[in-house]
Amino acid sequence: MRIAVDGFGGDNAPQEIVKGCIMAVKERKDLSIILTGKKDLLEQLVKQEYYGDRITVYDCADVITCEEEPVLAIRKKKDSSLVKTFELLKNGEADGAVSAGSSGAVLAGGVFILGRIDGVLRPALIPELPTVKGGTVALSDCGANVDCKPEYVCQFGVMGALYQKAIHNVDARVGLLNNGAEATKGNETVKQAYYLLKNAGVNFVGNCEARDLLSGDFDVVACDGFDGNIALKSAEGTANAVFTLMKESINSSFRAKLGALLMKPALKGLKKKLDYSEHGGAAVVGVKYPLVKCHGSSKAKSIAAGILQCDDMAKNGLVDKIAEAFKANE
Amino acid sequence: MRIAVDGFGGDNAPQEIVKGCIMAVKERKDLSIILTGKKDLLEQLVKQEYYGDRITVYDCADVITCEEEPVLAIRKKKDSSLVKTFELLKNGEADGAVSAGSSGAVLAGGVFILGRIDGVLRPALIPELPTVKGGTVALSDCGANVDCKPEYVCQFGVMGALYQKAIHNVDARVGLLNNGAEATKGNETVKQAYYLLKNAGVNFVGNCEARDLLSGDFDVVACDGFDGNIALKSAEGTANAVFTLMKESINSSFRAKLGALLMKPALKGLKKKLDYSEHGGAAVVGVKYPLVKCHGSSKAKSIAAGILQCDDMAKNGLVDKIAEAFKANE
Repeated sequence: MRIAVDGFGGDNAPQEIVKGCIMAVKERKDLSIILTGKKDLLEQLVKQEYYGDRITVYDCADVITCEEEPVLAIRKKKDSSLVKTFELLKNGEADGAVSAGSSGAVLAGGVFILGRIDGVLRPALIPELPTVKGGTVALSDCGANVDCKPEYVCQFGVMGALYQKAIHNVDARVGLLNNGAEATKGNETVKQAYYLLKNAGVNFVGNCEARDLLSGDFDVVACDGFDGNIALKSAEGTANAVFTLMKESINSSFRAKLGALLMKPALKGLKKKLDYSEHGGAAVVGVKYPLVKCHGSSKAKSIAAGILQCDDMAKNGLVDKIAEAFKANE
Repeated sequence: MRIAVDGFGGDNAPQEIVKGCIMAVKERKDLSIILTGKKDLLEQLVKQEYYGDRITVYDCADVITCEEEPVLAIRKKKDSSLVKTFELLKNGEADGAVSAGSSGAVLAGGVFILGRIDGVLRPALIPELPTVKGGTVALSDCGANVDCKPEYVCQFGVMGALYQKAIHNVDARVGLLNNGAEATKGNETVKQAYYLLKNAGVNFVGNCEARDLLSGDFDVVACDGFDGNIALKSAEGTANAVFTLMKESINSSFRAKLGALLMKPALKGLKKKLDYSEHGGAAVVGVKYPLVKCHGSSKAKSIAAGILQCDDMAKNGLVDKIAEAFKANE
């Protein structure tokens, strides 16, 4: 597959983006990449570490920043690395696209340039989080949409299930993020979404309290993007807090330091397990082309994972599968 | 102070409740406790470990379970351990009350038996969470109210600040739980709450992303109870996931096991730091008497911490301070 990558999106662009592209093409022999952005600089960076012909550069001068109003930026900056990335997709020159740039602009471009799949009310931003039982849980939506109607939340669950099936061949157990396990729990949106999900043709297994998000009992958790964002970031912040406090504990005594030295490989494995950048970025699901939004602070490893994730979405025909499933909703 | 304790509320009642009471009176010499519930059993349990006269028992036959409809249960079961606990407060026989029973029933009793402080729109459920910098952050509200109006969320922030001032003499930095740091972020409720909090006479320091909840940069985080519940439980679930995976990592090799043995005291200290049961239960703030709701699964240690927390609320006149601050809202 051919993946278009926004060479100038993200805090660590273009260096880490280029490195991520190189890691990705080395990992998969049937993958090629079109990098967008300032040609001279990008080509120079590519040549430092890669001599093959599977990374090409598409020249464009502009960059969209996180400070700009997303919709306006997408409309005005026709020669930006992000808009060009979308155009490569639409022109059929690429099979999928990846950007670590402004979330707002990526989502706006997804809707206004690529377009929503017929029947999809709102695209969802879906990251995969590691669970304690191995495998991942797809959190759908993690922040693309706030003030959601129950119908949106239901569709997020359906799209999450189609994602897990297409990418991991998992018959997803779909949960609904809620403040209690009982069917009567929740705010008005969630209470209605519960009954919609029950009749949505997915394997709906009921409410998921946030403490069970990483339990491995759910393959998809559907929610309003505001709540998904809180669940995701609270998990991220807590994992960071634990590791910060652990470091302090380790440095508190010689005995603990020695213990930590012996535990190092095991702890490293643990950190890797918990590191959701290993699982790529957040898939933008519900738009007409495979699209992945990587975290703004992504380093090469996450960019590479996001590219492989996008490649998987393209290879497995996720967009067609969603279009097929949502035909009835038109 | 005299604290009334629901002897039959919670998964581990009455054994762990009684143990918790004994721990609490041993910790504070000026504290006395009135335990409610089946007198014979409670007195027998108390006598196994405590010979003083600072724990007395108030006999009542009934128990409210988590399966019952809260408001109905509070109205019908006049002879339940929970309703009697509230009555001891209202009759002036106790200065504060603690229960690990049904959250719904405790909150319903708080509103319908004890009553809201004049000017308070909705009482908040406020747990204290440990932060990486030491000290705690008061999450207000963590689940008593869903579908909140912006005015409620603003009041939760104000009550949280009064709580931190009264209990810890902290001039609280108040944050608003949101999906981004910028003032323009959030759903409709949060956007409006932002401007209310700016003019609420507290030290409002802006939006708090869920990843910064435990950062120590906020002493109070205000939110709709649905969102607070998600933030709290996601943090809880992640901490558990980390410790579960850590155990697995440790058991994966002899080297790691040896390391863990050496690190044991440090890891124990870490677990203690992260254990929010050490900080008591969730204060029910905004009702006319000091009231603490302990987690349903509380063991003796958490019950004891909840009793001491309630004692602090009573000693420091939190209710009067809130009544004074909310006078203008009447």
